[in-house]
Amino acid sequence: MSKKQNKLKIIPLGGVGEIGKNITLVEYDDDILIIDCGLAFPEDEMLGIDMVIPDITYLFKNRSKIKGIVLTHGHEDHIGAIPYILQKINAPIYGTKLTIGLVENKIKDHKIKNVDLNVIQAGDRITLGNFSVEFIKMSHSIPDSVALAIYTPVGIVVHSGDFKIDFTPINDDVIDLHKLAEIGTKDVLVLLADSTNVERPGYTMSERTVGDTFNDIFSKTKQRIIVATFASNIHRIQQIIDAAVLYDRKVIISGRSMVNTVEVGTELGYLNVPKGTIIDIDDMNSYLPSEIVVITTGSQGEPMSALSRMAFSEHRKLDIVSGDLVIISASPIPGNEKTVSRVVDQLMHKGADVIYESLADVHVSGHACQEELKLMHTLIKPKFFIPIHGEYRHLKRHSELAQGLGTPKENIFVARNGSVIEFTEDTGKFGPSVQAGNILVDGLGIGDVGNIVLRDRKHLSEDGLIVVVVTIDKNDGNVVAGPDIISRGFVYVRESEDLMEESKKVVREVLRECEKNKITDWATLKSRIRDALRGFLYEKIKRNPMILPIIMEV
Amino acid sequence: MSKKQNKLKIIPLGGVGEIGKNITLVEYDDDILIIDCGLAFPEDEMLGIDMVIPDITYLFKNRSKIKGIVLTHGHEDHIGAIPYILQKINAPIYGTKLTIGLVENKIKDHKIKNVDLNVIQAGDRITLGNFSVEFIKMSHSIPDSVALAIYTPVGIVVHSGDFKIDFTPINDDVIDLHKLAEIGTKDVLVLLADSTNVERPGYTMSERTVGDTFNDIFSKTKQRIIVATFASNIHRIQQIIDAAVLYDRKVIISGRSMVNTVEVGTELGYLNVPKGTIIDIDDMNSYLPSEIVVITTGSQGEPMSALSRMAFSEHRKLDIVSGDLVIISASPIPGNEKTVSRVVDQLMHKGADVIYESLADVHVSGHACQEELKLMHTLIKPKFFIPIHGEYRHLKRHSELAQGLGTPKENIFVARNGSVIEFTEDTGKFGPSVQAGNILVDGLGIGDVGNIVLRDRKHLSEDGLIVVVVTIDKNDGNVVAGPDIISRGFVYVRESEDLMEESKKVVREVLRECEKNKITDWATLKSRIRDALRGFLYEKIKRNPMILPIIMEV
Repeated sequence: MSKKQNKLKIIPLGGVGEIGKNITLVEYDDDILIIDCGLAFPEDEMLGIDMVIPDITYLFKNRSKIKGIVLTHGHEDHIGAIPYILQKINAPIYGTKLTIGLVENKIKDHKIKNVDLNVIQAGDRITLGNFSVEFIKMSHSIPDSVALAIYTPVGIVVHSGDFKIDFTPINDDVIDLHKLAEIGTKDVLVLLADSTNVERPGYTMSERTVGDTFNDIFSKTKQRIIVATFASNIHRIQQIIDAAVLYDRKVIISGRSMVNTVEVGTELGYLNVPKGTIIDIDDMNSYLPSEIVVITTGSQGEPMSALSRMAFSEHRKLDIVSGDLVIISASPIPGNEKTVSRVVDQLMHKGADVIYESLADVHVSGHACQEELKLMHTLIKPKFFIPIHGEYRHLKRHSELAQGLGTPKENIFVARNGSVIEFTEDTGKFGPSVQAGNILVDGLGIGDVGNIVLRDRKHLSEDGLIVVVVTIDKNDGNVVAGPDIISRGFVYVRESEDLMEESKKVVREVLRECEKNKITDWATLKSRIRDALRGFLYEKIKRNPMILPIIMEV
Repeated sequence: MSKKQNKLKIIPLGGVGEIGKNITLVEYDDDILIIDCGLAFPEDEMLGIDMVIPDITYLFKNRSKIKGIVLTHGHEDHIGAIPYILQKINAPIYGTKLTIGLVENKIKDHKIKNVDLNVIQAGDRITLGNFSVEFIKMSHSIPDSVALAIYTPVGIVVHSGDFKIDFTPINDDVIDLHKLAEIGTKDVLVLLADSTNVERPGYTMSERTVGDTFNDIFSKTKQRIIVATFASNIHRIQQIIDAAVLYDRKVIISGRSMVNTVEVGTELGYLNVPKGTIIDIDDMNSYLPSEIVVITTGSQGEPMSALSRMAFSEHRKLDIVSGDLVIISASPIPGNEKTVSRVVDQLMHKGADVIYESLADVHVSGHACQEELKLMHTLIKPKFFIPIHGEYRHLKRHSELAQGLGTPKENIFVARNGSVIEFTEDTGKFGPSVQAGNILVDGLGIGDVGNIVLRDRKHLSEDGLIVVVVTIDKNDGNVVAGPDIISRGFVYVRESEDLMEESKKVVREVLRECEKNKITDWATLKSRIRDALRGFLYEKIKRNPMILPIIMEV
């Protein structure tokens, strides 16, 4: 074996210090293994941005070393950036059947050819360069989730993926605690584990408890039922279908991603839907309200989602009417509280009864709480620990939890994106970091919107814009047309004619001054106009619009 | 007494179907009583807006009837719009000492003269036209809060104000349950009550429990302590000061509104601060970290607040250092979860220990939970009920709670802003509504930003702007300068020169076409340019910037 490195590097390129865009590298000599490759949703201040993907400069520079991408499960924050990074690097992809099925759809949408997709199943073990990767069955809010045991030349690395410990999952494929226990006897070098719910004490409830709630609600009502949930939560959808079958209701699937999930899920055998259960939305009127369940997207109150459109009477085929029963089978993701609340209010205004999380047990998390995390640490018994999948405060809290279980503080690495942690068989320490960060995707543009563009968008969003146009004679510098002033997003112009007229006067005054002082330099002229107008408007109305002076020469 | 109306009207002009801008009218014959007059904070989509105040068109039309404004307490959502409505109407204002003190500050800031301010105290009863108003001591998260019993010609109206039931408040002024019980024996006609926490079962904990937590934390640490809380929560501030005194720490007050509160609170006798306890921030270095407590604003993660500035090293006098202990003594208001989380993360990055609500009992709500609301309904025994102070779902839930206690559904009025509910001695029903709504305040402009301006701001914020300028000869319509293209917030221009050059070509092509077809009409020219460029850019980059064609004539 080559002597040139002999150190194992673990590099979280995304997903630490944030919830989203999970991607972690494991590197040894000339081999790099990529674990997951997800996207993040834009922060509030990333105006107009559609999504955020990881900066993979480091991977691109070392693209010859990449041996493969292994995926833990099919959520967007773990697979969503794959179509983008495949434009820069090439590598075989490994994942369970459902995960690969979802990746396949993405690749089709992006019209990417010749991707090497490989379906593995829990229990399989594959070799990628210096690494041997074993896949271990886990419980999560999407089926077919796995943890990874990566056998490297310096020791075993365990990556938990996203997980909870559910003793009574829907698919009867219980988390493989025996395998985790067995690996724990082998002197594991490093554990990387999900920190999402580390602030919550106790245990996450089993997915099955939600099914009990559905059965209870379905048994008591004759109303039409509409259930909104995450399209990726196939177990949840299965439970809604089961309750519908039990209480003799037909099922209508609504929302593009929900229709996709049900198709893929049924095709790959993850959803069990008795024939004749699902009907077309156009046939709804042949049934009584008591014979109908609608499963829909929109549990986060997304304005364009099917549920929002139903609530605000913008859905072409389904309007919420008095007497409907709507179940929001989800928690608002932090940041979405207001939009969810608005949809709930609107549904109620239309006379619907609405059941949401604070009223009944219609949702459970997919992530492990404190006691489950303790079980994981205790089974794996790692020498070193890297908390992942969390904001900084989650990582720090997870570090404290591990310390409480006996892992020394110096053996725990609370990382940032781009941190490099170097391991030998018995040591671990931070090395020099590598480039990491956010690449913003806006429409078809990848990375062409940066801080300057965002700063301008923010400025424009707050006080709008004033354009000042002047045409000047190129021979003598005299004004031959204008100044004209056009504003957008600043004031309602029809009711502010005086203000616009006074603004013109201010500009004329500046032009006169400049003419008098023989100032014809455009940059000076523009900055004089900008300064004078800015001062005038702030004084007058305490607003600070973007001011764009334009000089034309004829 | 006049026979012309003989009906009592209750009109919530704000605060129903929303949390914020509380204002309710009580009207009988030629008398109108205004209860509270608050502002709301802007919704996310109200870009650049500073605050929202109620539309008082109805009050302005009936301004001769207004007998007075009575205030329940001094929070912004109950008094914040007073300086604005005093520009349109005039009326004497009544409130307790602290409430009037806070109003006085506002009026001074706005330089409004000749306002008739009247300090009352709990237990007082005043006559305003046909109404007699009795003030009743309540518990809330600001001292000197009152409920109102309004004696009208057709019966008693009880308005709860914002309240909780705290048996062990900080000022020893316990909520006057005896008075509420006594009024309840007099056949109350209508109750209006706070719905904020109606979704929470049980009881809100006493403010005093937070003090116990402070004492516990203070007793165990030698670190410098920084506590962030709401500036209006004088009881909380008192408890922090008490703990500081008990554990021999000096207190530093930070943040403009916190400094104001401490000044007003001390001056009016609501804060008890032993001499020498508060020191100037410039003297901090004369003390050990273990001898210092900083009380600061910024508990909502507001970017310009003192705590945020400390966290991001932008505070002139105080930087967070490793070893500091920061207590966030507040819950994030819905919508603020992300900003709070960001500040917590940043504090931790700097090495501070951070205690927030999910870790310890460092905050309690100021609003009644379900069991407290039941106590209120049971004591008052109203014939009719109007839930107020809540989103629609809170009002609906509060209606259900009242029904559970025996109030018939037809006696409960779930209102919208502007609803009119008409009462006689034994009937109540909805009458025709009056004008109500949101007036947006942006800088010094009141109501000059409406839907068109907001729509433009939204458009600008998402994809930015492209300005196209062309100068045309007024005699023959030929292009003499341009087209020039300027963009802001669209793409990073230096890396997109090709795109901008191609865009110019598209515009030139349009101009040529128009010249050929003798099209010189400006409107047509502009719309052709806009359409062609929009189509080109969407095709090319899937973005839709605002396009502003400007034609100059020489």
